[in-house]
Amino acid sequence: MGFDGDDTLWHNESIFSMTQERFRTILGGIDAAEVDRRLLEAERRNLGLFGYGIKGFVLSMIETAIEVTGGEVDARDIQTLIDCGKSMLAHPVELLDGVAETVEYLANSHRLVLITKGDLFDQESKIARSGLADLFDRIEIVSEKDPETYRRVLARHDIEPERFLMVGNSVRSDILPVLEIGGQAVHVPYHITWAHEHVEPPAEGYRRIEGMAELTGVIAAL
Amino acid sequence: MGFDGDDTLWHNESIFSMTQERFRTILGGIDAAEVDRRLLEAERRNLGLFGYGIKGFVLSMIETAIEVTGGEVDARDIQTLIDCGKSMLAHPVELLDGVAETVEYLANSHRLVLITKGDLFDQESKIARSGLADLFDRIEIVSEKDPETYRRVLARHDIEPERFLMVGNSVRSDILPVLEIGGQAVHVPYHITWAHEHVEPPAEGYRRIEGMAELTGVIAAL
Repeated sequence: MGFDGDDTLWHNESIFSMTQERFRTILGGIDAAEVDRRLLEAERRNLGLFGYGIKGFVLSMIETAIEVTGGEVDARDIQTLIDCGKSMLAHPVELLDGVAETVEYLANSHRLVLITKGDLFDQESKIARSGLADLFDRIEIVSEKDPETYRRVLARHDIEPERFLMVGNSVRSDILPVLEIGGQAVHVPYHITWAHEHVEPPAEGYRRIEGMAELTGVIAAL
Repeated sequence: MGFDGDDTLWHNESIFSMTQERFRTILGGIDAAEVDRRLLEAERRNLGLFGYGIKGFVLSMIETAIEVTGGEVDARDIQTLIDCGKSMLAHPVELLDGVAETVEYLANSHRLVLITKGDLFDQESKIARSGLADLFDRIEIVSEKDPETYRRVLARHDIEPERFLMVGNSVRSDILPVLEIGGQAVHVPYHITWAHEHVEPPAEGYRRIEGMAELTGVIAAL
């Protein structure tokens, strides 16, 4: 069984959201929807060079601030954005409801692999602070979650895709690529989805639960 | 055999150096030695949150620019620093002299592992662009190179430390921790060393060569 980390085991997007709210406040003179739009544009434009993670997000916020103010943004506001990034990186890891019990229970009967994407350094630090590291057989930090990545990870651990089930909050990263390679998937939506990750969920082919506490029931029924 | 990537297989520190020179020019009114000192201070202070890599370096440059100008730095100069970071990330991978032939030759007789630290996304991209990926049995991108990291990597691949030899340019990251766990090491100095990586090399216990072309001779003699 594979588990995603951010927004599946612990809160993540909510921390980005809080920072983005702060960002809108800093750029108070500019329409909030316009700020959001330009920031998402910058994040997408920079994704190919920066990859996922907080440092790239901060650089995209700084770039957007310079852009939307026509270069008039105060350097102190830029320092505030960097400080926001540092707070995000140092933010306590808060597990979602039902995660600790569910993962502990399933670790007795299944080989668990944590498959998470983002900054290597930040992800390692979060895994260590989550208190869950010992429950996982393997931890895989990857730069992108596409079918090829899942194929490679499963091959490395001699796992047949047909015998693999992935649990995660992102239809785009945790569900669709796993179904594509012949695996099974359980979708646990998080209350916020980053616009870049948003896709329409397929009508069938996977299970959807409302919280991690429901997972053991679903596994037992499979 | 383990190989380091940055400044062992391909140029890296020279690209940081060029950017840092540009940084001094941007802050032209301030003493260059003072700029270097404050930047190194920022990098060290931020290392625990940012880890290694270009994005963290850019954030530390921005922070230093704000600091040394008392918040007076122009936002356009900050954009220039972000653009420098993007150029660094997109910079072509240039192999060092003798690397391609040596790695290709040794891949016939040894299991090669690439052990490199830094941003996951940036390192993966460099490995792919290096053209060397297929010559390595395994690629390990790690967040820190200490004895514990080497022990973990070797254990994962069932390699006895006594049968392991590491080749790299950093005494601190590639030589000392490997000697500590009972492995062997070959030091190939690069012409620039980041101040943070600098340590006094030990008097004995490892081999030192002047370029990668000498490596096959050293291996044959072992």
